[in-house]
Amino acid sequence: MNSAIIIITCSDQFGIVAAVTGFINDNGGNIIKLEQHVDIEKSQFYMRIEWDLDQFIIDHHSISELFQYKIADNYRMKFDIHFTYEQPKIALFVSKHSHCFYDILSRYESGEWQVDIPVIISNHRDLEKTAQDLNIPYYFLPITKDNKLTQEQEILKILKHNNVNLVVLARYMQILSKQFINQYINKIINIHHSFLPAFPGAKPYHSAYERGVKIIGATSHYVTADLDAGPIIAQDIEYVSHSDSVEELVRKGGDIEKIVLARAIWKHINHKTLVYNNRTIIFT
Amino acid sequence: MNSAIIIITCSDQFGIVAAVTGFINDNGGNIIKLEQHVDIEKSQFYMRIEWDLDQFIIDHHSISELFQYKIADNYRMKFDIHFTYEQPKIALFVSKHSHCFYDILSRYESGEWQVDIPVIISNHRDLEKTAQDLNIPYYFLPITKDNKLTQEQEILKILKHNNVNLVVLARYMQILSKQFINQYINKIINIHHSFLPAFPGAKPYHSAYERGVKIIGATSHYVTADLDAGPIIAQDIEYVSHSDSVEELVRKGGDIEKIVLARAIWKHINHKTLVYNNRTIIFT
Amino acid sequence: MNSAIIIITCSDQFGIVAAVTGFINDNGGNIIKLEQHVDIEKSQFYMRIEWDLDQFIIDHHSISELFQYKIADNYRMKFDIHFTYEQPKIALFVSKHSHCFYDILSRYESGEWQVDIPVIISNHRDLEKTAQDLNIPYYFLPITKDNKLTQEQEILKILKHNNVNLVVLARYMQILSKQFINQYINKIINIHHSFLPAFPGAKPYHSAYERGVKIIGATSHYVTADLDAGPIIAQDIEYVSHSDSVEELVRKGGDIEKIVLARAIWKHINHKTLVYNNRTIIFT
Amino acid sequence: MNSAIIIITCSDQFGIVAAVTGFINDNGGNIIKLEQHVDIEKSQFYMRIEWDLDQFIIDHHSISELFQYKIADNYRMKFDIHFTYEQPKIALFVSKHSHCFYDILSRYESGEWQVDIPVIISNHRDLEKTAQDLNIPYYFLPITKDNKLTQEQEILKILKHNNVNLVVLARYMQILSKQFINQYINKIINIHHSFLPAFPGAKPYHSAYERGVKIIGATSHYVTADLDAGPIIAQDIEYVSHSDSVEELVRKGGDIEKIVLARAIWKHINHKTLVYNNRTIIFT
Repeated sequence: MNSAIIIITCSDQFGIVAAVTGFINDNGGNIIKLEQHVDIEKSQFYMRIEWDLDQFIIDHHSISELFQYKIADNYRMKFDIHFTYEQPKIALFVSKHSHCFYDILSRYESGEWQVDIPVIISNHRDLEKTAQDLNIPYYFLPITKDNKLTQEQEILKILKHNNVNLVVLARYMQILSKQFINQYINKIINIHHSFLPAFPGAKPYHSAYERGVKIIGATSHYVTADLDAGPIIAQDIEYVSHSDSVEELVRKGGDIEKIVLARAIWKHINHKTLVYNNRTIIFT
Repeated sequence: MNSAIIIITCSDQFGIVAAVTGFINDNGGNIIKLEQHVDIEKSQFYMRIEWDLDQFIIDHHSISELFQYKIADNYRMKFDIHFTYEQPKIALFVSKHSHCFYDILSRYESGEWQVDIPVIISNHRDLEKTAQDLNIPYYFLPITKDNKLTQEQEILKILKHNNVNLVVLARYMQILSKQFINQYINKIINIHHSFLPAFPGAKPYHSAYERGVKIIGATSHYVTADLDAGPIIAQDIEYVSHSDSVEELVRKGGDIEKIVLARAIWKHINHKTLVYNNRTIIFT
Repeated sequence: MNSAIIIITCSDQFGIVAAVTGFINDNGGNIIKLEQHVDIEKSQFYMRIEWDLDQFIIDHHSISELFQYKIADNYRMKFDIHFTYEQPKIALFVSKHSHCFYDILSRYESGEWQVDIPVIISNHRDLEKTAQDLNIPYYFLPITKDNKLTQEQEILKILKHNNVNLVVLARYMQILSKQFINQYINKIINIHHSFLPAFPGAKPYHSAYERGVKIIGATSHYVTADLDAGPIIAQDIEYVSHSDSVEELVRKGGDIEKIVLARAIWKHINHKTLVYNNRTIIFT
Repeated sequence: MNSAIIIITCSDQFGIVAAVTGFINDNGGNIIKLEQHVDIEKSQFYMRIEWDLDQFIIDHHSISELFQYKIADNYRMKFDIHFTYEQPKIALFVSKHSHCFYDILSRYESGEWQVDIPVIISNHRDLEKTAQDLNIPYYFLPITKDNKLTQEQEILKILKHNNVNLVVLARYMQILSKQFINQYINKIINIHHSFLPAFPGAKPYHSAYERGVKIIGATSHYVTADLDAGPIIAQDIEYVSHSDSVEELVRKGGDIEKIVLARAIWKHINHKTLVYNNRTIIFT
C-alpha cells in the first residue's frame, strides 16, 4: 500500500483538524493514522496524517501546491509531504567504533529498514572491509585542522551526487562545521553516549564513573551548531553499579547507543519526527 | 477549563474523522486533543476527542442524543461522552495488604486525583483506623463461602447508594462473583501481582521464585468473569536476581503494584481507556 | 535471627578476606552474606559481611575493640559494625509536598520498615494532621534568612534528644547549612527530582521540559555541603514524551521520587551503603 | 593479567569462605573478586572467586586435584575451575532470522568478546554469505523429521572436532533432541522471544498481541529437554501499546532478543553463571 504523510505545524486555531481531514477525504484519501498535539502553553498545533493513496484523485506532484493554496494559506501552516514509496537515502559517517555501524548495516542487509545506503564516509580505514563485503562505496576522508573545510566540501559533493537526504553519525568522531550542518538542517542524526544534558562533550563514561551515577544512558538527536544540544529524538538508559569499571560502562553503553540510534533513524525514515523550538514531536 | 470527551469505536470507514471533527467544530467546540487508532487487521476504528466546552452551543444533556442522530447512526458507532467537571466516585476494596490502599489514599488526600472516594469495603478490620482518620465510611463485610452472595448484594446496595462508578480492588483478596462483575463491566480495576499472563492465580511471587525469573511484574486490568484474564490497562516490571528471596520479591513487587494500579486508575478517571475484544486502547 | 554486619574499607592487600572471615569463624560466627569489591584502578578494597550472632562468643560491646586490635590495625582498615536488633531512628523533614512523606509513613505504619520515626520536622504546617493521626511529634519550625541558624540549632537539639541517626529530607525545601550537615555526615538522605547530574538546583522538571528530554529521573543521595553533588545512592527514570506538560512531568516524577527515596532509605537502614571518595558502594 | 576462577556449590556449612580463601591465599593467590550467596531456605551455598595467577605457586593442571583433596572433600563441594586465558569456543546455530546472528558476529569481529567461533551450523543457506565474508566455516545441514537424528550426529561430530564448549542457538528454529542436549548440559544457550514463562512455544508475539499485553520481553536460558523451561540466564522487556501491530512487536522484540542473548553469552563466557535446581546464580 502506498500512502502519503503530511506533517503540519501552525499556531493553534479553531477548525484545523476538520479542514485538513476534509481536504483529504474530499479528494478520495482514506486516513490511516492521524496524530495531533497541541502545546497549550505556547498555543502551537502539530499534526501528522497518513492516508491511503489508492483512491486519491490529486496527482502526487500537485498535492503540495493544492494543499498550500486551499488549506495551508488560511492557517499559516508549515507542512511537509512524504510518500512511503520514496526510499530514504542515508549516508553513514563512521570513525573506528563499529557497534553502531554494524547494527545499522545489519538492519539494512536484512531488509528491516526500507532505505538505501549509497555511501559510507569515514576519517579512518578501519571499517572499510565490511563496506566492501556489502558493496557500499566507502570514502576515506581523513580530517585534520587544516583540511577540515575542504574535506567537508568534498563530502558535501559526494552527498549531493548521491541524493542523500539523511546523514547518520554512527559514532563519527569529528565535529561538523556550521556550514555543513546548515546544508542538512534536521537531517543529521547523531548518537551521544550519555543521557543528555548530563555529560555532554568527550568521555562521558569517564565522567559518569567519577560522578558515581547508578544509571548510564544514550541520546540520539538532530545535530545543530550547538554541540550536543540539538533536538532529542530518542533516549534510553541502563542500570549500572559501583562494580562497573569505566570499561564496563563503555561496553554496556555500546548496547544502548546502537539501539537508541536505530530507534531515532526508524522514526526519521518513517516521517514521525517534527522539530519545533529545538524540541521534537515524536509521533507513535 | 471544562471540556467534553467522546470515545468512539466502529468499523473502519471513509470520512469518520472529518465527520466527527466537523460536528464538534460546527457547534463551536475547539478540539484540544484528538487520538485515533485503526486496527488494520480487524478493520476497526477507535477515537478519543477532547474539546473545550466554553463556546460549545449544544446543551450538555443533549450532546449524546444529537451526536447519535447526526453522526453515530451513519457509521454504526458506539460512543461514550464524559465531562471533566464530573468527578468519578470510587469504591475502594481492600483486605489486609496496605501498600496500594495507602498509596491511593495519599493521592486522594493530596488532591493529585480529582475523585471522590465515598466508601471503603473490606473483609477485614485491619485498615479501618486509617479510613476513620480520613473520615471515609469503612464497611466491614467478612466473606465466607456461605455468605458470599448475600454480602455481595449488601455491597452492591452500598455502591448504588453512593453512586459509585468505579470499583478499585486494591489487593482485595476475594474473587467477585460473575453477577457482581456484570453490574460494573469495565468499571472494576484489579491489580495482579505478576506480569500476566505469567503466574496467574495465587502466590505468583512464590512461582516466580521457583521459576528463577530475572524480572517480576505487576498487571492492572479490568475484571472479567475469567480470573486474571481481563483486558490489561497497565503493566510494569522490576529487575530481580537469584539473591532475592520470596520475601524480597514480595517487598519489591509491592512498589510496582501500587504504581501500576495508580497508573491504571489515572487512565480510567481521565477517560483514556477503551475496551474492545478483551484488549484495551490506552490513549496518551 | 540477630546478626552483626561489618563494613570495611582499606587499600587492597593480600589476604584480607581470609583474615576477616577467619576472625568471624574462629569466634563462632556463621557468615550469612559476604560481599566484596575491589576498585582496581584506585587499588581500594571494600567489604560487607553479615554473620549470625547466635553462637558468636564475643560480647557485642567488645567486638569493635577486638576486631580493631586483631585485624583492622594490620590492614589499616576503616570499619563500622552494626547489629540488626538496633532499630534506626529516623527524623523526617518535610515542607508541603506530601508524596514522599505519605509513602514513608505508609511503610512505617505497615511494618515494612523496622525503624523508629520519633520526630517530624517541617517549615510548614500542611502535613501536621497526618503526623497527629499517627502520634508522631511534629515540630513546626519555619525558616527565614534571619532565623535559619538558630532554627537549625533548635532542630539539632531535637534530633540529639531523640537519638536520631538518620535524617531523611522528603522534599524538604530548605538548604541545610554546612554546620548542620557536618553533624550528620553520610546520615542525611535527600531526594532530588532529576536524573543528576542533569538539572541540579530548582525547577528541574521545567528545565527537562525546555530541553525536550525523553526520560525524566530522580536521584537519592547523601547530602554534602556541595548542593545536589553528594554521593548517589539510588536513581531511576520514567519515559516521557512531547505530550507531557510540565505538570505531567511533575506528576509522573513524583512516583519515581518516592520509590527512589524509599530504596535509598532501605539500603541505608539495612547497612548496605558505603561512601568513599564521594561515590557509594551499594551492597545487594 | 591471567586469573583463575572457581565456582563452588555445596550445602551451607560453617567456615566455607575462610577455608577456600585460606587455600588460595596460602598458595600465593591474590583474590580479585569474591561473590557468595546462601539460599537460606534450601540451606545451599554458592560462591565464585577470581584470583590473580601471577604469584600462584600451584601448577594450573594440579589446582583441581589439590583443591578437591584439601578443601572440596571436607565440604562435599561441587566445583569448576576456569582460566581467563582459555578462549571459549562457540558454535553458532542459525536459521533464517539474522538479527541475533549479525549482533553476535559484530561483537566477535570488533573484539568485544574474547572468543573463538570456529563453526556456524544452519538448516538454511540464507546467512551463508556473511559467514564466508568472515571466513567462518558454515555447515548447511537441513533438518527433516526423518533425518533429524542423523543430522544431529553429524553436527555433534563437527562440534567435537572443533572442541566447541558452548552452543548458541541464535533463533535456530529446530528443537534439539534430548540426546543432543545431554552432550552439552548447561552449555547450550537459547533465546526465546517472550518473557518466559509467559508465551512459551511458537509465535509468542502473536499471542502477546492477542492478549493485549503492554510489555513484551525476551528470555535467554540454558536448554533442557523440557522446551522453553530451562534455567533463565537473562531477561529484558520493552514497553508496547495497542498501536503496535504483530509486525511491530516482532520488530521491537528483535532488539531485545539480540541484547538479552548477548548478555547471557557474556555472563557464560566470563564464567559468571551457575545452575542449580533449574535456577541460575548470575554473578555480577
